[in-house]
Amino acid sequence: MPQGIPLDQAILDKHLEVYHDLHANPELSMQEQRTAEVITGHLQALGANPQPCGGTGVVGVIENGPGPVVAFRADIDGLPVKEDTGLPYASTATGRLPDGTEVPTMHACGHDTHITAALSMAAHLVANRQAWSGTLVLIFQPGEETAAGSAAMLADDIWQKIPVPEIVLGQHVSNLPEGHIHTRPGHAMALADSWRVTVHGEGAHGSRPHDSIDPITQAAYMITRLQTVVSRETNPSIPAVVTVGTISGGLKENVIAAQAEFTLNIRTVDEESRELVLSRIRRILEAEAAASGAPAPTVEELYRFPRCYNSPELTPQVVAALAAELGEEAVNGEADRRMGSEDVGRFADDLGIPQVFWWFGGHDPASFAEGTPAGGHSPFFAPEDTRVVRAGTRAAMAAVLSQLGN
Amino acid sequence: MPQGIPLDQAILDKHLEVYHDLHANPELSMQEQRTAEVITGHLQALGANPQPCGGTGVVGVIENGPGPVVAFRADIDGLPVKEDTGLPYASTATGRLPDGTEVPTMHACGHDTHITAALSMAAHLVANRQAWSGTLVLIFQPGEETAAGSAAMLADDIWQKIPVPEIVLGQHVSNLPEGHIHTRPGHAMALADSWRVTVHGEGAHGSRPHDSIDPITQAAYMITRLQTVVSRETNPSIPAVVTVGTISGGLKENVIAAQAEFTLNIRTVDEESRELVLSRIRRILEAEAAASGAPAPTVEELYRFPRCYNSPELTPQVVAALAAELGEEAVNGEADRRMGSEDVGRFADDLGIPQVFWWFGGHDPASFAEGTPAGGHSPFFAPEDTRVVRAGTRAAMAAVLSQLGN
Amino acid sequence: MPQGIPLDQAILDKHLEVYHDLHANPELSMQEQRTAEVITGHLQALGANPQPCGGTGVVGVIENGPGPVVAFRADIDGLPVKEDTGLPYASTATGRLPDGTEVPTMHACGHDTHITAALSMAAHLVANRQAWSGTLVLIFQPGEETAAGSAAMLADDIWQKIPVPEIVLGQHVSNLPEGHIHTRPGHAMALADSWRVTVHGEGAHGSRPHDSIDPITQAAYMITRLQTVVSRETNPSIPAVVTVGTISGGLKENVIAAQAEFTLNIRTVDEESRELVLSRIRRILEAEAAASGAPAPTVEELYRFPRCYNSPELTPQVVAALAAELGEEAVNGEADRRMGSEDVGRFADDLGIPQVFWWFGGHDPASFAEGTPAGGHSPFFAPEDTRVVRAGTRAAMAAVLSQLGN
Amino acid sequence: MPQGIPLDQAILDKHLEVYHDLHANPELSMQEQRTAEVITGHLQALGANPQPCGGTGVVGVIENGPGPVVAFRADIDGLPVKEDTGLPYASTATGRLPDGTEVPTMHACGHDTHITAALSMAAHLVANRQAWSGTLVLIFQPGEETAAGSAAMLADDIWQKIPVPEIVLGQHVSNLPEGHIHTRPGHAMALADSWRVTVHGEGAHGSRPHDSIDPITQAAYMITRLQTVVSRETNPSIPAVVTVGTISGGLKENVIAAQAEFTLNIRTVDEESRELVLSRIRRILEAEAAASGAPAPTVEELYRFPRCYNSPELTPQVVAALAAELGEEAVNGEADRRMGSEDVGRFADDLGIPQVFWWFGGHDPASFAEGTPAGGHSPFFAPEDTRVVRAGTRAAMAAVLSQLGN
Repeated sequence: MPQGIPLDQAILDKHLEVYHDLHANPELSMQEQRTAEVITGHLQALGANPQPCGGTGVVGVIENGPGPVVAFRADIDGLPVKEDTGLPYASTATGRLPDGTEVPTMHACGHDTHITAALSMAAHLVANRQAWSGTLVLIFQPGEETAAGSAAMLADDIWQKIPVPEIVLGQHVSNLPEGHIHTRPGHAMALADSWRVTVHGEGAHGSRPHDSIDPITQAAYMITRLQTVVSRETNPSIPAVVTVGTISGGLKENVIAAQAEFTLNIRTVDEESRELVLSRIRRILEAEAAASGAPAPTVEELYRFPRCYNSPELTPQVVAALAAELGEEAVNGEADRRMGSEDVGRFADDLGIPQVFWWFGGHDPASFAEGTPAGGHSPFFAPEDTRVVRAGTRAAMAAVLSQLGN
Repeated sequence: MPQGIPLDQAILDKHLEVYHDLHANPELSMQEQRTAEVITGHLQALGANPQPCGGTGVVGVIENGPGPVVAFRADIDGLPVKEDTGLPYASTATGRLPDGTEVPTMHACGHDTHITAALSMAAHLVANRQAWSGTLVLIFQPGEETAAGSAAMLADDIWQKIPVPEIVLGQHVSNLPEGHIHTRPGHAMALADSWRVTVHGEGAHGSRPHDSIDPITQAAYMITRLQTVVSRETNPSIPAVVTVGTISGGLKENVIAAQAEFTLNIRTVDEESRELVLSRIRRILEAEAAASGAPAPTVEELYRFPRCYNSPELTPQVVAALAAELGEEAVNGEADRRMGSEDVGRFADDLGIPQVFWWFGGHDPASFAEGTPAGGHSPFFAPEDTRVVRAGTRAAMAAVLSQLGN
Repeated sequence: MPQGIPLDQAILDKHLEVYHDLHANPELSMQEQRTAEVITGHLQALGANPQPCGGTGVVGVIENGPGPVVAFRADIDGLPVKEDTGLPYASTATGRLPDGTEVPTMHACGHDTHITAALSMAAHLVANRQAWSGTLVLIFQPGEETAAGSAAMLADDIWQKIPVPEIVLGQHVSNLPEGHIHTRPGHAMALADSWRVTVHGEGAHGSRPHDSIDPITQAAYMITRLQTVVSRETNPSIPAVVTVGTISGGLKENVIAAQAEFTLNIRTVDEESRELVLSRIRRILEAEAAASGAPAPTVEELYRFPRCYNSPELTPQVVAALAAELGEEAVNGEADRRMGSEDVGRFADDLGIPQVFWWFGGHDPASFAEGTPAGGHSPFFAPEDTRVVRAGTRAAMAAVLSQLGN
Repeated sequence: MPQGIPLDQAILDKHLEVYHDLHANPELSMQEQRTAEVITGHLQALGANPQPCGGTGVVGVIENGPGPVVAFRADIDGLPVKEDTGLPYASTATGRLPDGTEVPTMHACGHDTHITAALSMAAHLVANRQAWSGTLVLIFQPGEETAAGSAAMLADDIWQKIPVPEIVLGQHVSNLPEGHIHTRPGHAMALADSWRVTVHGEGAHGSRPHDSIDPITQAAYMITRLQTVVSRETNPSIPAVVTVGTISGGLKENVIAAQAEFTLNIRTVDEESRELVLSRIRRILEAEAAASGAPAPTVEELYRFPRCYNSPELTPQVVAALAAELGEEAVNGEADRRMGSEDVGRFADDLGIPQVFWWFGGHDPASFAEGTPAGGHSPFFAPEDTRVVRAGTRAAMAAVLSQLGN
């Protein structure tokens, strides 16, 4: 493992500007054209040979003699959230949803800090080539929020464009004090599946239920029955969540509709639990349709977030490097699993190589005095700019160096 | 149609004693040994050639020259109810349920009045042979309360023991003023089905629901889902009732049982509705088991009350005769259908002949001043003895004569 | 009662054209401007002193000496249905829903036949003043489909604009053979109530149900619980329907929404049952919210269709007149109650006077050979033009004359 | 910490006989008279001054100069299970349930191994007084299976009978290989609450649901609604179980009963979660009764198992001592929390002192070749006698010595 590289204030200052620019110009998932251009420009300046991959994704490579090939992934998309931080560099941008609706956009999940930290880390490594050896692969992934981006990059033959890495590293900003790190070996986040369920019935006048197969009543019984998947069918010690996020059906209060629709969001913590939960949901949906004398509902998979599995062997190694850089007390390497989801896991799983993924904080510690600050996806999410750029750079650099040669 | 036969006070007085004796000695369904002996004795005295039929049932025949063959059916069983009327001839008898339990018994449904009125009517006809012609067949049926008696008499080849009738008449006492009659053409009462549903699951420790297929939760979802049969699947204008009368399951609060059981009582108003309701119930039970990943429940038919269908052609004829005897204002020939059940209908339906069945009152009209008196199955059910014997005799006689020759 | 007035073929021919014109130009509820102008023109030609009332409603009066004051009401609005009859006079018109959406419109409920028959009947009476005496009041009511029109006319002081009648008559076309009539004394149609129920919860991320009060799950339990109102709480012999016609909630499958909404359509057959059903629904909604730890839902009354109560005394009189005109076998004066709804009843109930309302057929009898033709609210609803104008005129005239003086 | 005491084969041999005797003579909870006599005899022989406490409980004290006071608790009751092990010392005993029913009994939960190990450990300490100093307090607790015993001993002023300890130790046999240990700091087992819920309604004939408040339907909706406590109201990462173990209601299929009853068994992992879950259950029960228009159900607490909380500070210390004795690889000090329950925790919590509780194995390792052997509460539960006595003695001795002085 190479020795640490000292922080370079000039590099940090420059990337603070990069951060402000990215923050002010968020783009929605799979539409990150401007963002990709910005990244490409910086990678070219670093001599990292940028290439597009997976639509608006970008990959770059920094070779530095023999040694390990280490991939570092940063996701780059913003969210349809109207920023309400009051920051001087706050976003006023808009984007278009897939259905064409124009909506305000914001880097409400902090992917701008991920891009900035990755570029800043890379700039430090380029400026300190004597301090390490091997190859650093940079993966700027679009569309994390929709789980589409990692799949798109793999479909675009990412491993043909860059050297095949031995490990994938990645980080996500969290509402923690500057320099604090949370991670854990094994399953770090939840697997997530989203389905659209179309419930079939037969319409009739509202006064003639016997002429109908009432799809809204059917959907209601489905939803009450789905509660048993978590309450009775899964091991109480293995978390699972089955949420009905949306429902719609019927056009007029006095007409029984011919169909209704709801969407499911399903969180599980490992593949075994996932298969069990999905199969039980499907069984219940089909049986409840049968109870109504209706055909089985149409189930459409909207997206699937893969597992986010940290190497049991290498996570402690990376944790040790982070602790050495940021302080033992700031680094929690056995944090609780989070029930949120990420699609970074597809890269390492595609190759069968290890991954280490962690959360880092960039907030002023004093801001916790009055409670935890607003978290990701909030219109008020606002890590402190200088802190988050510095902390993200340090964490990325320490982790990457722990896996490269010296 | 023959002219009416005047009431004979001596016959009425004699049958008032019969009534007191029967009332004091009720017997449970299909155990009416003493009752059958009493009936047999009276039929012998009338020269009606009594024969046992269907266990504790009795049939008799009174022939009187050429003419129609008219059957009159009276049911004879008591109920496991502890009499609380305070009458001098109140029952203190007990009987044994099928499981051996000894219970108080009472003619709480008034079948003692049915026997008495039938015997009294027959005595009047025997004493007035000049007033009619044809054949009167008397059917004293056991076990009406369990719907077992009519089936038992048919299984015992009743039509081999007596002349095959052209019509079946019958009556039931009700809490109406003396001499009041309610009936209706078509379906007069509900069809009733009772089922025992055994829900199958798999047991486990109460802390390990994921190792079980929880039968009590399954039963609960079945019961909530069964509500839709009446609320959504039947025509709102065609009454139906699905009642879960009993439920049981589990031995210990911290153990998930392997099975649970509930009983259903299902009321419908005609065969078409019955088939629809039963098939929907079965569909829901099977689907809810499937939703639990369990085998289909075991459904055992406990009993089935048939339709009680009054001839649209002949009911108005009988109603006219009753009105002539009891007064136009006392007879309602278009009364509401009742959701209770009766098994008399099997006799006429077995032969494909018409039936007319009606309710008659034997209460003191003054007793309605403070509200409707206690009805059937109540420990307080108490028509007035002289009134109910007289009213039952008159109604039976008017109806029977309307169908015999003169 | 006056003698009948013979049909005048010239009047019928003229009104066939009126019918074609109205059918081709339907207007949505409370927007019947053109229709009102057409009606006004015809009333002026009849000397009936037309006046606007209740927005797009029109009233007229034809005085003919001393005698009873009889009101005849016809409703005039079309429906947002795209006509698919292929008739030469089919509608291609459009209208705007309250929310501004442009939609195809059609006289899919046959109110064009009601206007035409009323005008044709009035023309016959004006042409035959020697045949009757008294006052005929004509009420052309807008907005029947939304139950808004009768209320609007009453709010606009209708009884100040026209002589106060002694009876209100009215008719509705049905898919019956020409000249057939269905009606019944007492409650002829259902009372209907429509509610919008807004279910309150608290939003959260889809992976954190414990931070939420999930409104969609709450709504699902409300809907399954509402089934018991019909299945367990109402008298099985008294029809009631509780339909959830629409439901909506949530914007994103992985977010638990803060609220959900559904609409109820409730059918009952008399005021007592209505109060019982509504109070039970409200009780269940509030209790289910409490079960979720949520505030009671917001319940907004969308509209209320009043009772449609036919005079027990006068309905047989009108039925007799209709039978005399159309044939005994064509007139069913004891038809089943219909579970649909009408707002005509407000007029008579406002004054405490009797009402008689009936359904009449205008289809070719031969069209029933292959099953019942399409009914109201269908895009295929199409009584035969000459038949329906003739039948509506005859029925209206016979009924009106039965209540006027001679 | 004192050095270990070598195992004494003569002591082990003697206690193998004790074990056989106890195993053949199990007694039900709070009826352990013979068991208490046996324990008392052995304690007297050890000079441990036995005293009864809490009915059939026994306490003893072994003083050995100045030093820590350490309590070791063993539970002593058997279960109403019919033994099916085929062992030569298998139980053929019977006992009486609280309701008087005679049932077969078995040490199916292995409390006989707990008694034996405690006595054997004490015998080793008495025989090796030079090896330790301080005071060993022995608590032989009755009625663990019903959570009644620890409460009874505290109610009987246990701390007046023995020196007040500084720590409570305890162990439970599990189906693990001989010498294997599982434990964890913090909450080691679930809190358990059992309730009897009596649902109130109003009875009626099965054909007249509108005259009833149907308690079985009400109970069914309660049970389906209770699923949401686990599925929607608790943190998915904090296990909870709500089991309906029994249900009963109704006597006859065609009668709607006046009440129904079910029992709940509720597992939670800490006090906060317990309070949340219990309050949500109560809220749902009351609201569902309100939804039925019924009074709130009667809730009777059957029993409550307290937390079983291992000292975060001292558990690693005890784990280290166990690992030193039994091997690092055999001792898992970070095992998963178990959802079963124990009432040992009341002792330490009553004093506010630390507790360490662990599971130990006594099975032949070879017996795991074909899958995990039968666990506790099974009629086949059978650790190997010599192994389980030896393993229990070693674990108890190592743990106790780690807390005593040297």
